[in-house]
Amino acid sequence: MYRTTTCGDLRLVNVNEEVTLAGWVQRVRDKGFMMWIDLRDRYGITQIILDEARTDKALFELAKSLGREFVIQVKGTVIEREAKNNHIPTGEIEILATDIQILNTAKLPPFTIEDETDGGDELRMKYRYLDIRRNPVRDNLIFRHKVAIEVRNYMSNQGFIEVETPYLIKSTPEGARDFVVPSRMNEGQFYALPQSPQTFKQLLMVGGMDKYFQIVKCFRDEDLRADRQPEFTQIDCEMAFVEQEDVLNTFEGLTRHLLKAIKGVEVAEFPRMTYDYAMKTYGNDKPDIRFGMQFGELNDLVQNKGFAIFDAAELVVGIAAPNCAQYSRKELDALIEFVKRPQVGASGLIWVKCNEDGTYKSSVDKFYTEEDLKLWAERLQAKAGDLLLVLAGETTKTRTQLSMLRMELAKNLGLRKADEFAPLWVVDFPLLEWDEETKRFHAMHHPFTSPKKEDLDLLKTNPAKVRANAYDLVLNGNEIGGGSIRIHDKATQKMMFDYLGFTEKEAENQFGFLMNAFEFGAPPHGGIAFGLDRLVAILGGQETIRDFIAFPKNNSGRDVMIDAPAALDNVQLKELNIKLDLLNF
Amino acid sequence: MYRTTTCGDLRLVNVNEEVTLAGWVQRVRDKGFMMWIDLRDRYGITQIILDEARTDKALFELAKSLGREFVIQVKGTVIEREAKNNHIPTGEIEILATDIQILNTAKLPPFTIEDETDGGDELRMKYRYLDIRRNPVRDNLIFRHKVAIEVRNYMSNQGFIEVETPYLIKSTPEGARDFVVPSRMNEGQFYALPQSPQTFKQLLMVGGMDKYFQIVKCFRDEDLRADRQPEFTQIDCEMAFVEQEDVLNTFEGLTRHLLKAIKGVEVAEFPRMTYDYAMKTYGNDKPDIRFGMQFGELNDLVQNKGFAIFDAAELVVGIAAPNCAQYSRKELDALIEFVKRPQVGASGLIWVKCNEDGTYKSSVDKFYTEEDLKLWAERLQAKAGDLLLVLAGETTKTRTQLSMLRMELAKNLGLRKADEFAPLWVVDFPLLEWDEETKRFHAMHHPFTSPKKEDLDLLKTNPAKVRANAYDLVLNGNEIGGGSIRIHDKATQKMMFDYLGFTEKEAENQFGFLMNAFEFGAPPHGGIAFGLDRLVAILGGQETIRDFIAFPKNNSGRDVMIDAPAALDNVQLKELNIKLDLLNF
Repeated sequence: MYRTTTCGDLRLVNVNEEVTLAGWVQRVRDKGFMMWIDLRDRYGITQIILDEARTDKALFELAKSLGREFVIQVKGTVIEREAKNNHIPTGEIEILATDIQILNTAKLPPFTIEDETDGGDELRMKYRYLDIRRNPVRDNLIFRHKVAIEVRNYMSNQGFIEVETPYLIKSTPEGARDFVVPSRMNEGQFYALPQSPQTFKQLLMVGGMDKYFQIVKCFRDEDLRADRQPEFTQIDCEMAFVEQEDVLNTFEGLTRHLLKAIKGVEVAEFPRMTYDYAMKTYGNDKPDIRFGMQFGELNDLVQNKGFAIFDAAELVVGIAAPNCAQYSRKELDALIEFVKRPQVGASGLIWVKCNEDGTYKSSVDKFYTEEDLKLWAERLQAKAGDLLLVLAGETTKTRTQLSMLRMELAKNLGLRKADEFAPLWVVDFPLLEWDEETKRFHAMHHPFTSPKKEDLDLLKTNPAKVRANAYDLVLNGNEIGGGSIRIHDKATQKMMFDYLGFTEKEAENQFGFLMNAFEFGAPPHGGIAFGLDRLVAILGGQETIRDFIAFPKNNSGRDVMIDAPAALDNVQLKELNIKLDLLNF
Repeated sequence: MYRTTTCGDLRLVNVNEEVTLAGWVQRVRDKGFMMWIDLRDRYGITQIILDEARTDKALFELAKSLGREFVIQVKGTVIEREAKNNHIPTGEIEILATDIQILNTAKLPPFTIEDETDGGDELRMKYRYLDIRRNPVRDNLIFRHKVAIEVRNYMSNQGFIEVETPYLIKSTPEGARDFVVPSRMNEGQFYALPQSPQTFKQLLMVGGMDKYFQIVKCFRDEDLRADRQPEFTQIDCEMAFVEQEDVLNTFEGLTRHLLKAIKGVEVAEFPRMTYDYAMKTYGNDKPDIRFGMQFGELNDLVQNKGFAIFDAAELVVGIAAPNCAQYSRKELDALIEFVKRPQVGASGLIWVKCNEDGTYKSSVDKFYTEEDLKLWAERLQAKAGDLLLVLAGETTKTRTQLSMLRMELAKNLGLRKADEFAPLWVVDFPLLEWDEETKRFHAMHHPFTSPKKEDLDLLKTNPAKVRANAYDLVLNGNEIGGGSIRIHDKATQKMMFDYLGFTEKEAENQFGFLMNAFEFGAPPHGGIAFGLDRLVAILGGQETIRDFIAFPKNNSGRDVMIDAPAALDNVQLKELNIKLDLLNF
């Protein structure tokens, strides 16, 4: 061992001990006749002191040669500091060095290894091994480890068994694109990397495992949006002999445990909200309920009063922004500009100031009396001092726009507090979703999700109205988990594939093994999958998942540190029985 | 919830309780006026009883329709059994059924769902979801989970952080073949799946993580030998500022903890043995030391006595098989046949019986006196009643042959006891290994392994003699872990690549990121990786890893259950910018 203790351990009680430390040179302060070295490792920083009076001359000279990020071993005596530093746990002591060994030198790092660094994103990713030396990144990775181990122990204590499912599986073109792997031994054939262990966990239920979980990497070859990764980690879970309520209770338990164990936050029973209610009230199936500003629909109050835009609209809907009645013209214009951005896409925004004195002032005073506006304010549960903001148009689009405005306002008003946690369940998702492009229904969750029995009759007459036994766990405006009660009989599963446009042959070819399994005694079952990357980020009070991944990829799916992906040589391609088929060659 | 309790929970104290159970019909015994159903779930078996006198007629009829593996829900009253069954924990009670719901029917399974099944290997793999219902397979998976969670908690408590390293990395043709993944977004380029997270864990050390571990899937596209899988699981570990002794102590701690926690076995300090000693004494770098039969070299005793075979041999080496002097001609012939098998490859076997009366009888009495044979017996530490077995020939081959004979004998003699655990460290492995095929040296462990400082001078004069800071953990004749102290400076790493025949460009292209990292302050570091599949199998007292993997692949790398790998359609290939390049098209 190169050390007897770490750079985070020593205190006043250790004074006079002879110790050996090893770590990185964070900083050297050279006062000529005296020198201090801040020595850093994962556990902290310890100050090393050398002075001309007490330190061997050769050692003093050696210390002068040390550069930032040199790796050194220091032997010395723990002494009490004259000027204590109460910002760090080791701040009461320092080490009077008696020997220093340089274990490795270091070139000047391309950015500073400090909590606030001068390195840009790409540079930090290229030198990720240096970025990880910074406290915030390292702490995020340690935090992730703690969350994962809490999840595992909680699930295990609840009788869940972690089962490793295979990574080399079969491609199922349905859904997102698969990453595929050519098989050398099976000429012309390919494995696929799993988008999730969905079918395997269902087979484990058929196999009687009863309660399964796994923290597992999944893969999706999608065009990357910001903050998506081609490989991501799921907490994947499944239970047999359960109904929706059982799954919700179990994973509410897990989430409550995590909030308590990791954040020390006690949360009461999670609210449950139907998909329809969430869409109507928040314009969104993953509402952030840390704050109010629920939607109020105003059609009956605002139409037929001569305001053509409202009269023509399918939906007129508003929110009350708390204490914003005093917004200046400039602030109002900023909001109008926000909703007109292409990403939001509204054509305008109506505002009403609910003044403290009980009067109202709006951008549509021409069409509405104060009496009218008072009714709007009541509908939106506004109080004096609030600002009503109203959008109008096609229902779905308008809700989405108002939801974006609501989130923007919350951000501006400081209502999205990182240390506040407001989980909720959104339930009764639609089974099917109309896809304009392909002109057919897609499974909103996935094709294994069971329809609600009482809605089965609607499948033929009004498929869009059929609700699924599907649910999402939402935390602070993010979907952190989603699942469903599954189909567990062949007939229903066949029918679903049929509705989703699979030919019988396609269904058999891709999912025959699952449908066959259903014929050998499949129990009722259901489950959920959490996105670990996002869950960890949100628990950590942040929203960028990349900061919680040790070696993330950039938005083109590249690892810029190792420079992957890369070209293969022809020998390797030949062995795999493939060749390139490039447009430009 | 479909049940109030499980099939493993009820005892006499529960008598008179109204319960609901759910599970699979294991067996129905129909005596006409009385019926018993064995209901099975993950937790056990509970007997259900129905009789004409007490049971509703319709229910009785329904029960008669139940087939094996039907999934049912049973309501009833817990009653005391008349004929108790003390083979199962629920054997004192049974459930007098008041209602049965069929939750799913089942076709007759293709093999019996019993501890001893009539299903062959391929059939069981095709219907793995049914195989998992069998107690031995299910118990293996639960056992694996327990081992994994013990590993994680132990490592975590020792300050190790589990960090997830990426699965989509860069191909490094060195070593075994990579599985590769075409990148759609980076035309003509490929990711590779990791053979191990080796370089990433070293970068984590450069990044100051100090102590890292991960239970992680790894991938090798090798022609599969029996009991190898293309995807396998490693317990991967790395530590900074350590020397070999620190790594050995840490992971001896882990292994000792597992043996205690999982098997209740206390093991004293693990023996340490050099590679040279292991090869000389056991003919093998992973000796099973649960039993003796150490090798004794006999050249000085046997040569120049007129026996041409021994005279011509580079090595004459033997073992003493305990209490086998009474072996019959037939038993001796079987041993001779064993060593002559092509897999072993010896041309003959010399035996010497050390009779109980102090006399000796051998297959070479023509050349050696009893006095000679007595000396052999002493050299091989034989006692009266033992059988000496001697092989001769080229050193390495002969050692390997005798090692195989030693293991065969141990198996026959019942010396390989599943409930006995004899771990040891093999250390001082050679750094390099001569490859006859390519006529150059390969890294015996991997190119990141550091040479022993004191052997560095030999690199130029006698490379085969250079020892590495490399070690294997051996348990019961299996290598369960292997690791090394790594190179942590660019100059040495470059030199190694050079010795291994990498051009400067190749080294830079494949491992430039690592060598660059070494220039920014890399600490001394080292680690180890355990094969989890094998570790679990051995702890479970078995040797076939496939029995401890939920969904294993067969020897052609196929998942016969889901029928993967499979052909892709041309659209998918086109998107990936590749096309097939088959010999037969």
